[in-house]
Amino acid sequence: MSNKGALLYEGKAKQVFETDKADEVIVRFKDDATAFNAQKRGQVDLKGEMNNAITTLIFEYLNAQNIETHFISKISEREQLVKKVSIIPIEMVVRNYSAGSMAQRLGIEEGIKSPITIFDLCLKDDALGDPLINDYHAIFLGAATREDLSEMYALTEKINKILIQLFDEIGIILVDFKIELGKTSDGKIILADEISPDTCRLWDKETMKKLDKDRFRRDLGDVTEAYVEIYNRLKNHLNK
Amino acid sequence: MSNKGALLYEGKAKQVFETDKADEVIVRFKDDATAFNAQKRGQVDLKGEMNNAITTLIFEYLNAQNIETHFISKISEREQLVKKVSIIPIEMVVRNYSAGSMAQRLGIEEGIKSPITIFDLCLKDDALGDPLINDYHAIFLGAATREDLSEMYALTEKINKILIQLFDEIGIILVDFKIELGKTSDGKIILADEISPDTCRLWDKETMKKLDKDRFRRDLGDVTEAYVEIYNRLKNHLNK
Repeated sequence: MSNKGALLYEGKAKQVFETDKADEVIVRFKDDATAFNAQKRGQVDLKGEMNNAITTLIFEYLNAQNIETHFISKISEREQLVKKVSIIPIEMVVRNYSAGSMAQRLGIEEGIKSPITIFDLCLKDDALGDPLINDYHAIFLGAATREDLSEMYALTEKINKILIQLFDEIGIILVDFKIELGKTSDGKIILADEISPDTCRLWDKETMKKLDKDRFRRDLGDVTEAYVEIYNRLKNHLNK
Repeated sequence: MSNKGALLYEGKAKQVFETDKADEVIVRFKDDATAFNAQKRGQVDLKGEMNNAITTLIFEYLNAQNIETHFISKISEREQLVKKVSIIPIEMVVRNYSAGSMAQRLGIEEGIKSPITIFDLCLKDDALGDPLINDYHAIFLGAATREDLSEMYALTEKINKILIQLFDEIGIILVDFKIELGKTSDGKIILADEISPDTCRLWDKETMKKLDKDRFRRDLGDVTEAYVEIYNRLKNHLNK
């Protein structure tokens, strides 16, 4: 068991603490919710616990499907132990249906199924509003090499396939999601950060009800209930 | 000689007229200047004549280098006869140095040389502000197929190589430029639109003076003089 040390980093939804092992850190999930590049701020009851629990279920599932993640173990209601990685400063957004910023940018309706997997690369930079970039910008900025990008796309595509299937099994359409990837000390690119209703758009297959952070972004109500619903469906399906 | 018929289309800087041949149209270059998605408007004396003359010199040069363009012939001070194509609704922006919207988007200085050719695809849609898109968006929207995109990148890269060299020979750094491609009736993708100081960033190699539309965008003065300077250098160099 690793002992919790100094706060290394505090983000909008999580804190990262050092441990007595150089290559492991503790992630603590907060109830703080932000949207639209932190212009909208609030609290969602139980969000920290739910996102910790949901990320745990999903990362354990992905690990079992031979997708390497930073996840080691859940250590408390709000905390998990993870491998320390160097986060690649590019958010990989994957879209199976139009929604959110892409729908807005292209002037189209939400909910149009895409014939291809759409990848949006966004530069992780709050001051710039996490702008959409492309491979050329990423290479120009030194955020990733061409070889990194090939690996990142391949890994992200694999994760998408597994998650579409997993969410389908619990009656959910995986509309889109965002992941962050990190490099281990030996240069391997693995899945980091979290996968939760904060980072995915999840629509109920029958009712099309949104069960994700859009309930907070768009003031739709029942925010906590949506996170709990996703957790319960995953937990029951995975027999955890 | 084709006779000028009805106005088919009027853009911000050009008009297109039909001719008595179904596969040929006349392009007329206006002095109207717009910037920032037409939020800034003005007139630049001689711009229409200069852009017609400069595009003629460049497209003739490219044709001679085995780059197929829509250009047939210059028919008056402000007009040229071109092949009618169906314009692909994607602006291909090529960047050899950081500048303009890319520098702003990424929060970096202008004038940083890129180790790779940077391509920005922008959706041709004034109402949306010609947003940056990527290959996946283009395919999703049906703006281009994967095969079209491969051809478009290859052609644009070739054009960039030729133009870097040509402008270098007249003491100009080709910082970036935008082209539009069109499909002929038999499905071939060829260069269309124009290449001029309206669509390129051109910096004098010695003085770094901007000799392009940024003089209008940024109220730098001597706008007409810059267009005339580019025309004169090209004309003298190409012995036309």
